[in-house]
Parts: sequence; structure tokens; C-alpha cells
Amino acid sequence: MTVKIPLAEYLFRRLHQTGLRAVHGVPGDYNLTLLDHVIPSGLEWVGNCNELNGGYAADGYARVKGIGAIVTTFGVGELSAINAIAGSYAEMAPVVHIVGTPMQNLQSKGVKLHHSFCSGAPRDYELFAEMYERVTVAKANLLDVETAPAEIDRVIRACLEQSRPVYLRFPMDMVGQMVPESLLSTSLQLPPVLNDLGQEGVVAQRILQKILDAKQPMILVDGGASRYGLSRHAQELVETTGFPTTTTPFGKGIIEENLPNFHGIYATVGDFDYDSYVKGCDLVVNLGPVHSNVNTYYFATVPKEDITITIDRTSIRIGEEEVAIRPGPVLDRVIESLRFSESFPVKPRDELPTSDTALQQLPDVNPTDKFSQSIFWRRMSHFFRPGDILLTETGTASLGARDFVLPRDTTLINSSVWLSIGYMLPASQGAALAQRHIVQSAETNSQSATPQGRTILFQGDGSFQMTAQEMSTILHKKLDMIVFLINNNGYTIERLIHGPEESYNDVAPWKYLECASFFGVESTESYPTLKARVSTWGELDEVLAKRDFHSGKGLRMVEVMMEKEDCNDTLRLLLDIYKAKKG
Amino acid sequence: MTVKIPLAEYLFRRLHQTGLRAVHGVPGDYNLTLLDHVIPSGLEWVGNCNELNGGYAADGYARVKGIGAIVTTFGVGELSAINAIAGSYAEMAPVVHIVGTPMQNLQSKGVKLHHSFCSGAPRDYELFAEMYERVTVAKANLLDVETAPAEIDRVIRACLEQSRPVYLRFPMDMVGQMVPESLLSTSLQLPPVLNDLGQEGVVAQRILQKILDAKQPMILVDGGASRYGLSRHAQELVETTGFPTTTTPFGKGIIEENLPNFHGIYATVGDFDYDSYVKGCDLVVNLGPVHSNVNTYYFATVPKEDITITIDRTSIRIGEEEVAIRPGPVLDRVIESLRFSESFPVKPRDELPTSDTALQQLPDVNPTDKFSQSIFWRRMSHFFRPGDILLTETGTASLGARDFVLPRDTTLINSSVWLSIGYMLPASQGAALAQRHIVQSAETNSQSATPQGRTILFQGDGSFQMTAQEMSTILHKKLDMIVFLINNNGYTIERLIHGPEESYNDVAPWKYLECASFFGVESTESYPTLKARVSTWGELDEVLAKRDFHSGKGLRMVEVMMEKEDCNDTLRLLLDIYKAKKG
Repeated sequence: MTVKIPLAEYLFRRLHQTGLRAVHGVPGDYNLTLLDHVIPSGLEWVGNCNELNGGYAADGYARVKGIGAIVTTFGVGELSAINAIAGSYAEMAPVVHIVGTPMQNLQSKGVKLHHSFCSGAPRDYELFAEMYERVTVAKANLLDVETAPAEIDRVIRACLEQSRPVYLRFPMDMVGQMVPESLLSTSLQLPPVLNDLGQEGVVAQRILQKILDAKQPMILVDGGASRYGLSRHAQELVETTGFPTTTTPFGKGIIEENLPNFHGIYATVGDFDYDSYVKGCDLVVNLGPVHSNVNTYYFATVPKEDITITIDRTSIRIGEEEVAIRPGPVLDRVIESLRFSESFPVKPRDELPTSDTALQQLPDVNPTDKFSQSIFWRRMSHFFRPGDILLTETGTASLGARDFVLPRDTTLINSSVWLSIGYMLPASQGAALAQRHIVQSAETNSQSATPQGRTILFQGDGSFQMTAQEMSTILHKKLDMIVFLINNNGYTIERLIHGPEESYNDVAPWKYLECASFFGVESTESYPTLKARVSTWGELDEVLAKRDFHSGKGLRMVEVMMEKEDCNDTLRLLLDIYKAKKG
Repeated sequence: MTVKIPLAEYLFRRLHQTGLRAVHGVPGDYNLTLLDHVIPSGLEWVGNCNELNGGYAADGYARVKGIGAIVTTFGVGELSAINAIAGSYAEMAPVVHIVGTPMQNLQSKGVKLHHSFCSGAPRDYELFAEMYERVTVAKANLLDVETAPAEIDRVIRACLEQSRPVYLRFPMDMVGQMVPESLLSTSLQLPPVLNDLGQEGVVAQRILQKILDAKQPMILVDGGASRYGLSRHAQELVETTGFPTTTTPFGKGIIEENLPNFHGIYATVGDFDYDSYVKGCDLVVNLGPVHSNVNTYYFATVPKEDITITIDRTSIRIGEEEVAIRPGPVLDRVIESLRFSESFPVKPRDELPTSDTALQQLPDVNPTDKFSQSIFWRRMSHFFRPGDILLTETGTASLGARDFVLPRDTTLINSSVWLSIGYMLPASQGAALAQRHIVQSAETNSQSATPQGRTILFQGDGSFQMTAQEMSTILHKKLDMIVFLINNNGYTIERLIHGPEESYNDVAPWKYLECASFFGVESTESYPTLKARVSTWGELDEVLAKRDFHSGKGLRMVEVMMEKEDCNDTLRLLLDIYKAKKG
């Protein structure tokens, strides 16, 4: 006899198979019965305070755990989340968005239900799905129990393969439809697309030759590398070649920064000007480029095509010639060949700055001095340790992160394309939960979580206010987290762009440190809530040195008082370019 | 010499001419220079904590003041607000959404700017506008300074005429383009569309005859009446005919409830069953019907077509025949004729319940008893007074509002189509500000604001958490408001639908009354913040009786402790139907 399970259970157990352990979202009239199947399928339910926050949290979870999921309700819920899903699309985070929708027969008759426009046309029930087409890579509407399991598999697969969000409509009456449990034992993954081995050899050989011939080479690692599953290849290529390596802001954290041939973010380490070295380059290996204005200093760091080997998700471009090919196996061949070459790794270039240079250049500070962002961010590097997940909110914090020198095995989540202010706080909830789930399941194949790793959020005051209520979820889920709340009295990054004294760049002065109390959580031994306000280097150092703070549990929140118009040199440089370009 | 002004100033001064006095929104990279023109144009800037909240607030402002506006930034900002704008579309609130977009030449070249998908195609800059097409009635992209003023006029006009949201893209480089100031002195309104006078007479005569012939008539007032500018006509028709009058939930507040022929919400006043009367009706005048499931008890209160005269925005349907005509002048003719008839107004029907009946049926309560929602809402009617604006959040509060008996000149804002939980708190910020602006400008043509009128919000705990940070805007704008926070420990309406004990219907227990403190506002003499928690009728009555509370200034917040699964009979009835219909 065929054992059958409800379709909703099929969905959630399939997601469990991919490594998912938490579903984020908000209950609503059209998804309640769906939610009944979350916990029985082995997944944790995270009820966020609203759907946008839920979308951000699922994205943060996905960036650490490899997949995230959010459940919303038709209309009001899904539209509230669409900006988060658009961000997942723009920055390639694999999020499954499941929308509970009304009974099929009511939709097809155009019955005028709440959460719709009540026009009387069945089209009312297609409008929002059409919007979602623009921000997802696959979608399905589960209308037929015979095809539904395959449809679910298809969208999950697209999510994982393309590392981008997908959209699944789940009508209420399909939740309990029964499907064979045995379908769960089929592999979700299709057999990998294999390259033509001959072509693979040819391309590998051509890359190898370019590497062997290069007199002044550079490797430039960008955020696509991690999204395309090429983080390991990137690291091995950097180590095996010994080539001078830089990163974009979006690619920061993929390569271990303590390598002698790692030279920080292109154009921004210390006072060094890369231009003279880069202008003389005869080879740039560009891994996973993501060209936004803010990721490339307005395209100034995009290498010249004729000297560049560009590694994308499903293609490699050598100079002007592009070959459709899976790059992973090609890079493996190149790396394997280089391992047998006595000429590699090449010696580090002493004239290029390293992470050590950056830290050595840090000036001493006077303990009674107020903070300066030109020092603050780089100086925070000493606080980080392997396994940490660092999240830096768009604004001064995100630009500040470019100054970080990261220990090995740290994950940096910043935003370099979408830049939706307010994203980072809920994302940190997702990231901290993912870190906990990774530690719990003792997974070892992730670089991002070790038992001693912490989740550390750098958040501005203006952005904190956008999504502040997700501190409640962090607190009530008892997530261990360190929060640096950068209080510079408003939207500093906007002040620096335009209107430094305009009231529209002000935000209200909240008592941020009262948040645990307001959100109803008392400090306990098992989940302490530490808080401190610091205005000087001395006060900060005192907090950072406390064992309860740096290695303790619970929520540890520090309000860092900054000057209203202060920022680091990196941001000042970017703003100069921005203003010159007027956009 | 032609005096010229910047295009941005033209926009905001045009909006000022329509009665707008406040622009809501959030600053962003692509709208900062636009925002420079808000305050100099005589408008107040309201910086909301996030764009969804800003959209809700602009909607609340629009429902009281007749027009609202929000400014967001391209991509991230506008998508965050889209659910609010969809709600304005669904429930017909006139909101102008202005989106600051990048420089035109960068858009047309597809330059890969932040807040876009960075695909390199100009189409990146059209995607979100395409989404907005589905939730707005007019749009413009200000690309040409020659046509821009007319384009601005066109979309504002559509907003006002259709009482629905419009969408205006404002590229950064157009902000300072100069246009003749004299254009502001042309009338924004087109000449009114006049009916064919002969046809108008014929239709009026036919309606009059139906009214004269009716043996068992009823007037049913719905929310469309106010959106179509027919509130005055509705009130006069009700008074002049004396016909038994009922309202839908969405239409509640349009007609004065102390009239002897006003009989409450169809099917829900007290214990009375309307069915016997309605089944015998030979005429129903249905003003501005809006047919959603929740507004019609699943279509049970939609009158039969053959006995119904339906008044819509631009048409009148008599039985099965629909005539395209502006209904206002037709109704004026009918009302004028009835004024000369000695048979009208007809005598009230004693067998039908009135507002008095509803209040008389209220049982006495024991001061030490806990609350019961079957009594609470109707009992609150005694607290209200003319000029009040009442806002009742979707959930138990919205259904509770159906039990209210309203004094004359009160405005009720509830939601009967879109039902986006979290809407009401930011909407109350908009409504309270609109009330202040109406009082300040001493406008007398609005029924909704008199100096003694108050803004009173009934908000659930779950919904409060969704948009809680807008309490900060309420507090820092020093808006006078009374908030009843219904604390029933979770999403009660969802519990009643499904999963009463499921964890997904829980919300975290916040210390709601600490919000003024957390949001950084101390109680002062000029802006006091009163707070109280009440669990019994006696405690509530004590608070309500305090002069500082009922007639004072500042934020007055009461946390009303309710049972987890309690609701009023109205909601229980609706849920019974809902469950039977399964959707």
C-alpha cells in the first residue's frame, strides 16, 4: 500500500532535505492550515512581527544556511514582503516564498474575497503573482495534486541552482491533498550538468597558459563567487597561484584575509593607491563579478576586458571570447595543474599592502577621545574571531565594513546592490538562527559557523527604526547576538549626500538600550541582556574587554555615540565620485 | 518677464492647492533634492520610520483630509510601500505616490545603479513602475519639462476624481527644471462632466416614481458613497425620505446614526434579525456598494437586483438597466422633489431597532468583572462625541466597531476590503495630523473635524507589533491621540479561524505602555503621555472618566486586557459563515 502524506508536509519535508531548519513568516487567513505542517516536518517556526521583516530574516538565514523560506498570506502579506524578495533577487540569496492563497474554486470564480481588489474577475488572483515574476526566477501555482510534488521540486531546485528567490502559491484546499511519501526519497537534485570534457580541457589549458604567462597578475574576487558555489575554488586558486588578490566590497569575506597575497578591497586598503599596480596588470582573474556602482566605485574597478578572465555562473570569458561552461570543474583542473608546478605559488609582492599593513597603520587613540569613523571600523577588526558572522547595515556601517580586516572563517553580510536600509536587523535574526542551527546539527561543511562564532550586527540609528520590532524576535527566540548601535543622530549617509542640516534627515532620538525591556524580556542567567552606551575609545575598550560581553550569551547591545556627519575615508571617496556623477 | 519656479515646487504647490498640508515619506538617495521643496511649498514633512508605514499614514491622512501624499526613493522605497498603495486602491483612498528616481541619462543607458537589479538594461528602471500600474489609476514619468506640469496636473486630477492612488516618477535631474509660475493659477480641476439634462430628468423621475410607489423600502449606504462625493446626498436622501436606513460595515459613519430611521449595520444591530423586513422589501436604494466578503457577510446582504436602485460613481442601475450618468445631480433632483411632497418623510418603523435600542439592550456590568467583547464595543459608544475620528484595526477591533453607535459628525476608519493588519496605527498618525490641519485651517466644510474632536485608535497587540515604530512619529509630532491597545495575547482573529492553541498565533508579550519612554518622549505639561492598564469594567470606567484622559492633550494610552479567544457576536457570526464557505 502506498503511504501518503499531505502536500504541505511534502513541501516542508522537501525543504528540510535541502538543509532548511526554519520557516519565517506571519500567519494570515489563507495560510493557517499550511502552518500546521511546519513544526511536524522538523522545521522551526519563526513568527516575525511583519512580512517585510520576515523576508529580510529569511534572506539573512539563506545567506548563512544556504536556503531560507518565508510564508505569507495572499495579497497583503506577499506585497509587504516584496521589497525583501527583490533584495534577495538583486543580491542572489536563495529564498523560497510560499504564499497561502484562497480556495481554488473561489479564485477561479473571481469571488470578491478580502485581501483582493474585489473586482469580480479571476484576474484579481493573478495580479500579485505577476508582480512576483519580476523578482523571482521560478514560480508555481499548486493547482493539481498529480503535478504538485514535481512543481515543488522544480522551484526548490531553481532556487538552489540559481541562488535566487522563487515563488510558490499554495491554495488552501491543496494543503491536505495526499501525495505518495515515497516521492521524498527521490533525489531533489538533478544530475549535475557535465561539461564536454574535451572543451573543459581546452578552456582549462587556455586559462593555465594565461596564468603561466602572466608577468603582473591579479585575482579579483567578487560576491558572485560564493553565490555560484565557487568559494572553495576561489580560495584554492588564490593559495595555489600566490597571485596578488583583492576583493570587491561584495566579495569581502570569501577569501581568507590573513594570506600574504591578500591585499584587501581593491582601492581602499590604507593609503595605498592600487592604480599603479593595476594599470600595469597583464592578467586579471575576476571571479563572480557583480557590477553595481557602489561595488565598483562607479565602475572604476572593473578590469579591462582584454586582460581579464571572467568567471561567471555558467560561463567563462577569456578576453573577448565567452564560453558557456560550468566553471567549477575547469577551475579544479587549473588548480590541480598548478599544484604540480614548481613555479607556484609565486612569492608575495612586498610592495602591496596586506591586512597587517592596514592594522599597523592604525593610529593610537586617546582613551578619552570621542570616536572617529576613519579609525573605528578598522580598529574593530581586533574584536573579531574565526566563526563570526558580521552584518553591517547600509550606510556608514556598510562602508565602514570595507575597513575591516577579517580573521579566517568569518562571514560578512553587507549589501552592495540593493542597499535597502532596514534590511540588516531582521537579517541578523535570520543569520543568528542559522548559525545556531548549523552548530546544533554539527555541520562541518560550512565555513561560517563554529561553536565559538558569534553574530555581530553593526546597525545605524535611522535604519534601526525601520525594522526595530525584529529585536523582539531576536530576544524572544533567545538568540545570542552582539549589536553595535551606531547613534549618529539621523540618516548620516543621506546628510553627506545632500541636506546635512535638513530636517528630513533627522530621526527621533529613541532610548535604544531600553529595547529589551520594551519588548518584554528580562535579563536572566540563561539569557542575559547586557547594555552600554559608549562615547570614547576608553569606554568602548572597557566594554569589549568584558568576558560576558565578548564571549557571553544573550543580547549584548552597545550604543556607540558618533558625530552627526562623521564617516570613514572610504565613504568620503565614494561620495566624491557619486557627487561628480550626480547619481 | 515670465517668473519661473522649479518643477518640484510646482508639484508641491499644486498639491497644496488641493488641500494637502503634509507629505509623508522616507528620505533616500534619489529623492533628497526633491524633499528640499516640501516645506517651502507650505507643506509639513512627516518622516515616517519606514515606507510601508508612510504609505499607511498618507492613506489615513487622505481619508480625513481628502488627499494624501508620500515620497519614496526608487526601488527599495517604493516596493516597501506597495502594499499600502494597494490598500489605498482597494479601499479608494486618494494618495499621490511620488518616487524619486535616478538621473534620466543614467536610466536610459541602463547604468547599474544601487536600488536596481543591475542587469545593465534600461528596463531595470521600468520594472517597479510596471508593478505600480496594477495598484494605481494614473501614472507619469516626468521626462520633459515642457509637458511635466500638465502631466502632474493629470495624475493629481485622476487621484481626486477616482479617489484612488496615482504614481509619479520624478527623476533627480528634473527637480530643478524651471516652469512658469503662472501655470499654478490655472484651475487644476477640469470643468465638471455635465449630464445630459434631459436624461438626468428622466432618470430622476424614474427613481422618484420608485420611491413614491414603494411599500416596504430600504436605503443601504455603503463606503463608495463617501468616495464618490455622495455623502451629503446620502444623508439628505435618508432624511428626506424617512426610509428605513441601514449601512454596511464599510459605509458606517456616513449617515448620522441618531436619526429615528437609522437602523445600524444590516443584520447586526442587537438581537434583531433583519431578514423578515428585508425579504419583504420592494425597493432598496443602494448607495456606493462595495462588495467584499467581509463587508457583506459573504454576500448575504447584497440586495436582489430587481428591486434595487444602485448608485455608483458614474452610473445608476435601476433593476437590470444601467445608465451611465453622474449620480450627484440626479439625486439632488430627487431630493428636491421629495421636499415638496407632503407624504415625506415617511414615519419611522417602530418595529425596526434603532441606535437607542442597541444601547438600551446593553446589559449592566459588574465593576469587578473582566471584559467581554460582546459588551465592550457597544459600551464604548458612550465615550464618543461629535467630531471624533475613530480607527479600528483589522481583527477583533474592526468587527467590534460594527457594534459602535456613533454620534453625529464622527468619522470611522476601518477596513472592509484590503484588511492589511498593521495598517491602522500609522493611519491614525495620518488621521490625527489631518484633523490638526483641518482645525488649524478652520475649514468648516468637513464633517470630520471640530476643535473638540479627538483621534481614537483601537489597536490589537499583534497588529501593534507590525508597525509599532510609528508611535514614535505620533509622539514626536506631538499628535493628540487616545489609543486603546487591546491585549488579547496574540492574533485572536486567526486563533478563531484556525489553530487556537498553535504557537504561530502567539505574539511576544511586549510592555506596550512603555512605548513613549522607549521612543524617547517624556511626559510634559504641553504634551503629556498618560498610560493605564485595565482588566475590569471598573478600572476602565475610572480611566475614561478622567478629564485629562477624555478631554486632555497628548498621548493617552490604555492597555485593555482581554481574553485570548474572546470576540463579539458579530465576529462569531462572520466566522461561522467563513468556516462554512472555507474561505
